[in-house]
Amino acid sequence: MATGKLLYAQSGGVTAVINATACAVIQAARRKGVRVLAARNGIIGALREDLIDTAKETPAAIAALRHTPGGAFGSCRYKLKSLEQDRAQYERLIEVFRAHDIRWFLYNGGNDSADTALKISEIGNALGYPIATIGVPKTVDNDLAVTDCCPGFGSVAKYTAVSVQEASLDVESMCESSTKVFVIEVMGRHAGWIAAAAGLAARKAGEPPHIILFPEITFDEEKFLARVKATVERVGYCTVVVSEGVKNAEGRFLAEAGTRDAFGHAQLGGAAPVIAQLVKAKLGYKYHWALPDYLQRSARHLASKVDADQAYAVGKAAVEYALEGMNAVMPVIVRTSDRPYRWKIEPAPLRKIANREKKLPPSFIARDGYGITAAARRYLEPLIRGEDPPKYGRDGIPEYVRLRNVPMGKKLPVYSIEDK
Amino acid sequence: MATGKLLYAQSGGVTAVINATACAVIQAARRKGVRVLAARNGIIGALREDLIDTAKETPAAIAALRHTPGGAFGSCRYKLKSLEQDRAQYERLIEVFRAHDIRWFLYNGGNDSADTALKISEIGNALGYPIATIGVPKTVDNDLAVTDCCPGFGSVAKYTAVSVQEASLDVESMCESSTKVFVIEVMGRHAGWIAAAAGLAARKAGEPPHIILFPEITFDEEKFLARVKATVERVGYCTVVVSEGVKNAEGRFLAEAGTRDAFGHAQLGGAAPVIAQLVKAKLGYKYHWALPDYLQRSARHLASKVDADQAYAVGKAAVEYALEGMNAVMPVIVRTSDRPYRWKIEPAPLRKIANREKKLPPSFIARDGYGITAAARRYLEPLIRGEDPPKYGRDGIPEYVRLRNVPMGKKLPVYSIEDK
Repeated sequence: MATGKLLYAQSGGVTAVINATACAVIQAARRKGVRVLAARNGIIGALREDLIDTAKETPAAIAALRHTPGGAFGSCRYKLKSLEQDRAQYERLIEVFRAHDIRWFLYNGGNDSADTALKISEIGNALGYPIATIGVPKTVDNDLAVTDCCPGFGSVAKYTAVSVQEASLDVESMCESSTKVFVIEVMGRHAGWIAAAAGLAARKAGEPPHIILFPEITFDEEKFLARVKATVERVGYCTVVVSEGVKNAEGRFLAEAGTRDAFGHAQLGGAAPVIAQLVKAKLGYKYHWALPDYLQRSARHLASKVDADQAYAVGKAAVEYALEGMNAVMPVIVRTSDRPYRWKIEPAPLRKIANREKKLPPSFIARDGYGITAAARRYLEPLIRGEDPPKYGRDGIPEYVRLRNVPMGKKLPVYSIEDK
Repeated sequence: MATGKLLYAQSGGVTAVINATACAVIQAARRKGVRVLAARNGIIGALREDLIDTAKETPAAIAALRHTPGGAFGSCRYKLKSLEQDRAQYERLIEVFRAHDIRWFLYNGGNDSADTALKISEIGNALGYPIATIGVPKTVDNDLAVTDCCPGFGSVAKYTAVSVQEASLDVESMCESSTKVFVIEVMGRHAGWIAAAAGLAARKAGEPPHIILFPEITFDEEKFLARVKATVERVGYCTVVVSEGVKNAEGRFLAEAGTRDAFGHAQLGGAAPVIAQLVKAKLGYKYHWALPDYLQRSARHLASKVDADQAYAVGKAAVEYALEGMNAVMPVIVRTSDRPYRWKIEPAPLRKIANREKKLPPSFIARDGYGITAAARRYLEPLIRGEDPPKYGRDGIPEYVRLRNVPMGKKLPVYSIEDK
């Protein structure tokens, strides 16, 4: 029986499957007799000594996490300053770890979180309190370095592809006498991974989506309008996928490049309405647009089985690595074969992951800039395979679990992050 | 063996399950040895003599319609003028019916379509070409008279409730340090049926959605903002569902009441961003908003089993009624029991349905105007029960069918609807 406790925290935007990772962490630790505490609202809870005792949850509740979206313990958007700028914050974390006999820290997040985990892994040694710190990957943005893909991405990719497929069937039905152009906006401010996944909706050349606007490609109004017109004239309608991160030639986000609100401020959020209104103004086509926003990253009902399995696998591996005494590593997904798709989990050093960003390879974007290549399809398609639906209640709504989240007693003085 | 052919047409906005009705019509007619033609793009195809021979489709393709969204033969937004205004249009329809030996006409749509079907049922007699005309119910708006509910509504209701539930779990995870107010806009320009269905996401009092803005209730900015503030202070975040049809005290749609596009035109579509920006401007909360648009009505992957079954049942009954010689009727859904939920199909006269609109009963809206009552829940909840997922391909995408849609040869002179 190992001594000490394991602290788990969720960080950054949540995903449809981050709780599958939480489930794996708790189940793997329980099997080893290790008690898991969870920080409420990510690193904020660790700083505030706001810790949750997961031992108070039933095995059934923990098992149900595997199919529940959102972040069961709360997540945060809170970036720690650098060690040089705020050493005291790191010292406070070590104090909290020491007070609760926390020997392992698992930080489940994206790029920033990998950086935070790396710093904590270093200061632990410096302050004479060895803490094994493991970064656990998670992000719908799919932009973590080293790992082949990021848990959370496969499910938003599947949601996006299926939604584009379904809405396009709708538009196709109506285009003779109604809507001719449908625009759907997807997440991805810096990289077009989710936009690319929309391309999976097309099984054959010519099927929708007809145009994907990637943040990697500067928006060319004239060329775009010509393509919309040609598509409508050829197939009767046009489905456009636009990434929220698309910019015009002046380098401004489309979402901020047109509309103003009632107070005259530039309207934030909404590349889709800008594109739709442009089409209406210049080509006269009737349009509809959709902006699924959080729906896309929380749609656990449509999760990818591969993604859910990988989210579970990285959680399980993280506990194993920690208990084996590893430090400053992240369990990453290694693709060993495309066809058949095979993957395994391996540890990778956090220093190779922190502060890096994996871009969409240029070879994934079709030469005309509006679609995906065979290489993209080969990479993306396995990630959305398989279904893993939640259990539904008799009332037709998924049986998502809400944990009791019983707090641990506090042992330290109050620490307010607002004052820092 | 009956003689003559049956013509089926889809009309108005399509739904996730209108093709389940088409499937039932064709399967039921095939069992009786009756050949089914389909009008391409609804009544437009009937006028143009643009008819599809469904006999050219395999049984497997027809069976797959049951799980395919959109309108397989094309639908239309095209309202026939009244008999008095344009008798020639009705005469053309009869000519087409006569040329193809069409004895039964099934028109699958909403209010307008019921009116069209009623007119055709009358003029058939007047012109000496008896045509049995059956209206077949379909509309996500749930506003048809007589029938207890409308095929298509249960699935959009389920999509909306599940999406609100999932996105709220996401927002709840993030609210300590990020988004505090999430606004989702749902369809329903005239009645708050879909908005009300969002209320099913809350299994217990206090669960999200916290505020529903119904088109039946005039928007009261001050009261709304106070409720948002109180909710955020109580539970940390606030989920708001806004119907696209919400109006302010001046009677203007919120969607048109604020923002202007780059050309200075009022921005169409988007009550959600208006509400979100109001919250930001007046309360300072970080917001996100979603507008699923067509995604909500085409989400066959999340269809309600009850809804899909009812869509199939009305199609089957419509064929039976037609072959039994009924005219000017619609198969409607009769609820015989709430608990357990039981329903049956009965014929109802089209004249009791055409040109009427079923409003959301005032007794379904909570006294404060922001939620649903127990009566609403009793009515709505059975309609979203059960799952009926499509078959997915190995590539993770549903196996939706695309029919061959082989045209019938034309027998009449060209008829252009654009000239009329």
